[in-house]
Amino acid sequence: MKAFKTNKLKILNDPIYGFITIPNSLIFDIMEHPYFQRLRRVTQMGFSNLVYPGANHTRFHHALGCMYLMQKAVRVLRFKGIEISDEEANALYIAILLHDIGHGAFSHALEHSIVSGISHEEISLKFMKKLNEEFRGKLSLAIEIFEGKHPRKFFCQLISSQLDIDRLDYLKRDSFYTGVTEGNISSDRLIAMMNVAHDELVIEKKGIYSVEKFIIARRLMYWQVYLHKTGLVAENMLVKILQRAKELAQHKVELPATKTLQYFLYNQISEENFTDETLEVFSKLDDYDVLSAIKEWTSHSDVILSELAKMIINRNLFKIQLQDRPILASDIKEQEAKLLSKLPIKPNQVSYFVFVGKVQNQAYNSKNPIKIQLGENEMVDIASASDQLNLQALTKPVEKYYLCYPKKM
Amino acid sequence: MKAFKTNKLKILNDPIYGFITIPNSLIFDIMEHPYFQRLRRVTQMGFSNLVYPGANHTRFHHALGCMYLMQKAVRVLRFKGIEISDEEANALYIAILLHDIGHGAFSHALEHSIVSGISHEEISLKFMKKLNEEFRGKLSLAIEIFEGKHPRKFFCQLISSQLDIDRLDYLKRDSFYTGVTEGNISSDRLIAMMNVAHDELVIEKKGIYSVEKFIIARRLMYWQVYLHKTGLVAENMLVKILQRAKELAQHKVELPATKTLQYFLYNQISEENFTDETLEVFSKLDDYDVLSAIKEWTSHSDVILSELAKMIINRNLFKIQLQDRPILASDIKEQEAKLLSKLPIKPNQVSYFVFVGKVQNQAYNSKNPIKIQLGENEMVDIASASDQLNLQALTKPVEKYYLCYPKKM
Amino acid sequence: MKAFKTNKLKILNDPIYGFITIPNSLIFDIMEHPYFQRLRRVTQMGFSNLVYPGANHTRFHHALGCMYLMQKAVRVLRFKGIEISDEEANALYIAILLHDIGHGAFSHALEHSIVSGISHEEISLKFMKKLNEEFRGKLSLAIEIFEGKHPRKFFCQLISSQLDIDRLDYLKRDSFYTGVTEGNISSDRLIAMMNVAHDELVIEKKGIYSVEKFIIARRLMYWQVYLHKTGLVAENMLVKILQRAKELAQHKVELPATKTLQYFLYNQISEENFTDETLEVFSKLDDYDVLSAIKEWTSHSDVILSELAKMIINRNLFKIQLQDRPILASDIKEQEAKLLSKLPIKPNQVSYFVFVGKVQNQAYNSKNPIKIQLGENEMVDIASASDQLNLQALTKPVEKYYLCYPKKM
Amino acid sequence: MKAFKTNKLKILNDPIYGFITIPNSLIFDIMEHPYFQRLRRVTQMGFSNLVYPGANHTRFHHALGCMYLMQKAVRVLRFKGIEISDEEANALYIAILLHDIGHGAFSHALEHSIVSGISHEEISLKFMKKLNEEFRGKLSLAIEIFEGKHPRKFFCQLISSQLDIDRLDYLKRDSFYTGVTEGNISSDRLIAMMNVAHDELVIEKKGIYSVEKFIIARRLMYWQVYLHKTGLVAENMLVKILQRAKELAQHKVELPATKTLQYFLYNQISEENFTDETLEVFSKLDDYDVLSAIKEWTSHSDVILSELAKMIINRNLFKIQLQDRPILASDIKEQEAKLLSKLPIKPNQVSYFVFVGKVQNQAYNSKNPIKIQLGENEMVDIASASDQLNLQALTKPVEKYYLCYPKKM
Repeated sequence: MKAFKTNKLKILNDPIYGFITIPNSLIFDIMEHPYFQRLRRVTQMGFSNLVYPGANHTRFHHALGCMYLMQKAVRVLRFKGIEISDEEANALYIAILLHDIGHGAFSHALEHSIVSGISHEEISLKFMKKLNEEFRGKLSLAIEIFEGKHPRKFFCQLISSQLDIDRLDYLKRDSFYTGVTEGNISSDRLIAMMNVAHDELVIEKKGIYSVEKFIIARRLMYWQVYLHKTGLVAENMLVKILQRAKELAQHKVELPATKTLQYFLYNQISEENFTDETLEVFSKLDDYDVLSAIKEWTSHSDVILSELAKMIINRNLFKIQLQDRPILASDIKEQEAKLLSKLPIKPNQVSYFVFVGKVQNQAYNSKNPIKIQLGENEMVDIASASDQLNLQALTKPVEKYYLCYPKKM
Repeated sequence: MKAFKTNKLKILNDPIYGFITIPNSLIFDIMEHPYFQRLRRVTQMGFSNLVYPGANHTRFHHALGCMYLMQKAVRVLRFKGIEISDEEANALYIAILLHDIGHGAFSHALEHSIVSGISHEEISLKFMKKLNEEFRGKLSLAIEIFEGKHPRKFFCQLISSQLDIDRLDYLKRDSFYTGVTEGNISSDRLIAMMNVAHDELVIEKKGIYSVEKFIIARRLMYWQVYLHKTGLVAENMLVKILQRAKELAQHKVELPATKTLQYFLYNQISEENFTDETLEVFSKLDDYDVLSAIKEWTSHSDVILSELAKMIINRNLFKIQLQDRPILASDIKEQEAKLLSKLPIKPNQVSYFVFVGKVQNQAYNSKNPIKIQLGENEMVDIASASDQLNLQALTKPVEKYYLCYPKKM
Repeated sequence: MKAFKTNKLKILNDPIYGFITIPNSLIFDIMEHPYFQRLRRVTQMGFSNLVYPGANHTRFHHALGCMYLMQKAVRVLRFKGIEISDEEANALYIAILLHDIGHGAFSHALEHSIVSGISHEEISLKFMKKLNEEFRGKLSLAIEIFEGKHPRKFFCQLISSQLDIDRLDYLKRDSFYTGVTEGNISSDRLIAMMNVAHDELVIEKKGIYSVEKFIIARRLMYWQVYLHKTGLVAENMLVKILQRAKELAQHKVELPATKTLQYFLYNQISEENFTDETLEVFSKLDDYDVLSAIKEWTSHSDVILSELAKMIINRNLFKIQLQDRPILASDIKEQEAKLLSKLPIKPNQVSYFVFVGKVQNQAYNSKNPIKIQLGENEMVDIASASDQLNLQALTKPVEKYYLCYPKKM
Repeated sequence: MKAFKTNKLKILNDPIYGFITIPNSLIFDIMEHPYFQRLRRVTQMGFSNLVYPGANHTRFHHALGCMYLMQKAVRVLRFKGIEISDEEANALYIAILLHDIGHGAFSHALEHSIVSGISHEEISLKFMKKLNEEFRGKLSLAIEIFEGKHPRKFFCQLISSQLDIDRLDYLKRDSFYTGVTEGNISSDRLIAMMNVAHDELVIEKKGIYSVEKFIIARRLMYWQVYLHKTGLVAENMLVKILQRAKELAQHKVELPATKTLQYFLYNQISEENFTDETLEVFSKLDDYDVLSAIKEWTSHSDVILSELAKMIINRNLFKIQLQDRPILASDIKEQEAKLLSKLPIKPNQVSYFVFVGKVQNQAYNSKNPIKIQLGENEMVDIASASDQLNLQALTKPVEKYYLCYPKKM
């Protein structure tokens, strides 16, 4: 690996970890690329800041945090005698740095409206391949790991598994910025207890309680933060706005927006027609395109679009009824009737304002278990290692149902 | 004061203070107003996140933090026997909550480009007066305090002085989010040592070292964060972009932007013609208008506008030479010549790319001193109370000069 | 309540909570009493500092922390409309401040060696009654609450239950000082979610996940800290030392020690003969008596006493074998034989060096459940409220067995 | 260096730094030595816990913290291209680990009463030499550094200078445990800005404000914590108690105490007769000997000894009058007269109860300056590098005078 040029920025401040060091100039150059710089303009938690005003951190910062933790993991594993070459370590840093590079503006909401049939992971891969061309093959190993194809399985598990570096950073970071201190996890300790057995990632025996606590904390974060009622409403409203915009676009209605956003509104982008050009436009799309357009739409002549836009901008959000059982048809009807009596829209448009949905979370998935190392050759699923706490129960997905409708118009 | 309706949100999470309580429903309603909600979309530190990636906190959050600290201050002063009525306390909360409501997108940069001859304080006052109408006079006392006209001088000093609640929050908050832990101040302790003598805010004698440390920490934040070279460059580039846009607008060149931003580009707004309509448009202008426009301008036909826009979006910032003495004319000439040899622009346009500037900071100002209470009737300026540290020296403003020019084109 | 004299110390620093305020001068006076000052010389975690070098905090500090949290709890409950008079609040502060005043030096170890058949709670009550005499009845209400006899059941539950103020402080404090950050609990949030229904303490519905996390954190603290192998060994060795000392004392062997400690070595103190005089001597006994004596005993002529003393002082601790099943008799025999071949002691003395024991912990006890408030009149045990996590499983006590023996002599 | 045996404890928890790693088994073995284990029983801040109840941390923990920071410093300097061999690094770790091993119980107080004419640094050196014998010369390089004799000057400066590792840990640690958050320093950043020029330790230019802040924080810690009135009184009272005990011992009065403490009471130990035997006894003397003796002395027949002992044990401390000018003779006389009218002592004994003293602190000493590196070959004293803050003023020692006398008898 070429030596570090001294005129390149080497250390970044992080409120959580203190200082983050950029390990070498290849990574520095990747970070300087516009593709990566875009992540500065994509928030990690979308509209969660409507509930937790401190949650304005970006995917850029999360990616840096992941790289920092990966450096720790590599140090710990090497200390325990696991051989990891410099080239492999570097590939791990790059893979984790870029694992989310394909996330769209307002992340998940966009996957269901702006593009269809293509996940952010697939877009991340497209970006990585494009960068690999530009950097003349230096990302090949990172891509192999990212795709889960590397023979040393623990490399892939560090990037994507139930106890991967991604989670170790985002749970800690989201807990930190939301101020939900109870979701805080001890990434340090979890990494300190990592080891490798038969090329698989394992956790030392004395880490059982820490893993349990990690699972419980993650569960808490889901129900208290990621699936928080208000955040859920806002995200749904955003999807409705973009769906309405796309519908209007299909009917050639003029929609003020940046050219970048218009590209995705006036074209139907799916996996099949996601070309290099699409990737280039996508690489310019961020939260600013979306939110500035919605602000413009508050005065659009289409009443559906403008009403929804005004509501989200002024944080006059829908009411949400969240429950364990599916929503009764009668409850939906009731809200639909109310709505129609107030707003001059057609019955087939009512679903923009009154709608149901379902969220679910599985605290722990035993298909790809977190493994605890009891003896040199004895690895067990944490769900059975735990002496008493019935983690098995947590493998059952929990589902909740919701009905949304306007408070007042 | 009317009782709190239970359906109103009462507690907000804050990563710094834990929980922030909204004291009553009037304040809740003010916070729900679109004028105040706009602050969610205005970052506190503008482009500082190009240096400190964690610094994405908003003016909304800062305002809440101020209100929290003001509640503390009121509790402390009442505990020490200072009488503050509920009505006065409420006015203090409102005054501090709204003290920055007139800040434009990207704050200070805009004051020098988008509008002219009107400060954010004046715009804050316009907003407060408008809200006072809507809330039928309930903000009158808060306005009196904000304007510095209230007879109890310490009320005004809590809002605006060298040790006001504003500073106690923003220094702490900016230090926290940038990760520059050295700038951290002990707001808690400083408030705990506040008292009132002859209706003026004073600090108890044992707080001398804490005040000293506060002044030194603030100084550190200025030179390490607020006036950081890279942030300075980015802010200057933003001003240049907006100046160029305004110049083009005056020549009727078409500029893609939101209608809100276009209003300020195509009109010359100053104090004289800042009407109610202007205020209404201003109340819709935020970081999203500005940044989405700049993104659009990266492909504008005007080479000056597009070059500058691309540079800032992709973080390919100008080089900056920062020094204690004024920049030599020969240094400027040299850079100008280089620039003209590379870019197809006219000599009178060179100042968009090569320019000088000056920053200054005064660590402590003895005109409105921070007073230390030595005895019941003995108050002295901290600058003389400090037994040894020559704070007097800090009253001299420090000036630094800079020259900016493109690294590479 | 009499006004606070200004010459009395009002605020104490706490690394965890910031500032702790002493609410009034009665409490100030109680804190100044030698009985309470003794707690400065009794560490909260005994020999845990042999494992966690930061864990040197005292029962004095824990008591203060409890009082601080109780003040929070009272504020929260009053805010929710629960009436608590100033007199009642004061009784709660006193009850929690003194709840552990009967803890002996090195706490639990002493209960099994120095005194017998009397718990620290009973001694606490003796102290409180004695103080009540001195303070002419002002502690009566606090005593009623401490004894669990007050008609408002939630008063008693705040002092002693599965989610009492005691636990909220000690788990947080012990986690903080040991550096086992994973054991950290959000006392703030748990208190914020407290309420009272039918005079019983309940937790609001949205606090379910927080309570779950509290239970899991407590479980982690037990197995990772309180029942940590090394701490367990040290505590057992301490008991052995004191038992040997008592045995020697019964045979009139001279034992250098403070007069205070000698009183408990040369007399057999149990509940029956625990007189006022005993209480007075007990009020002088602290960690310093015990540890300075052990240091002296390192050169005692009795080889058992001196060997054990040297081992603990120089942290040359026994080996411990900790397992889920009872220790096999053969394992014990083996170690006993080894020991006898090395040390000139009699077979009936071997149990000072080779011994077994059992520890157990019950993560959650459904007999006195933590109640979650689902509706106004609907309260359920957290064990059933939790939608998925099988907390019921945690009600089964976990037992572990251990065998201790010297590493080397 | 021999490999690390896996059965040796490798990682320790620290509430401040997270995890502290023991770098190798030689250091592990040194740490296990009784000489070093003694530091577990010597508090870092003596009686400061009478003011700051959280301040119970030990010299043992401080030594570990220093070793941790030294590991950081070595990493940083190596990263910047400074060559430090493994052997040298190890010597630095050992030197800093042992730099305070000669501190007596209750530290500074003992230097003025128990022994005379020998500093704790000299005793540290004696311990190090003794250990060097036991470890067959492996500490030679560490001793050379500790004595300031190593040719690479920055090695010595890391151990002892105005910005040494010792200060970087103790200021941070004492601030943390006292809860005086304002004294917190950013050890991380200061170390990150260390460099070496001409074999001298320097701080990079951009670290100027951080060094300033470090100096101011240290000054605050002195006046707010180390020289806090109450702590000062308690330390003085301790000296008086020990002086009285020594006086009585000279007159053959019997004093209950551990044999270890009696050795120092009944013998006059100074530099000349500080033999190997003395060192051995000293290695057993800790806070427990001193405090348990004082507790015994509360019932001693000598009224001076018992009165002083009772006062300190029950925290009934002397009053202290602290001022900038020397105490007036008349003030002293007044208190002496009062005292004699109340206590049956002789006039020549009055100085045990009424006495004056002086404390001083020099915030910064320009004799061995902290050097800032302005250019490759340009180093300046921070006192002149600071652009504005008059650090020169801080080189003048500040003196304060005090008079102590009993509040009530």
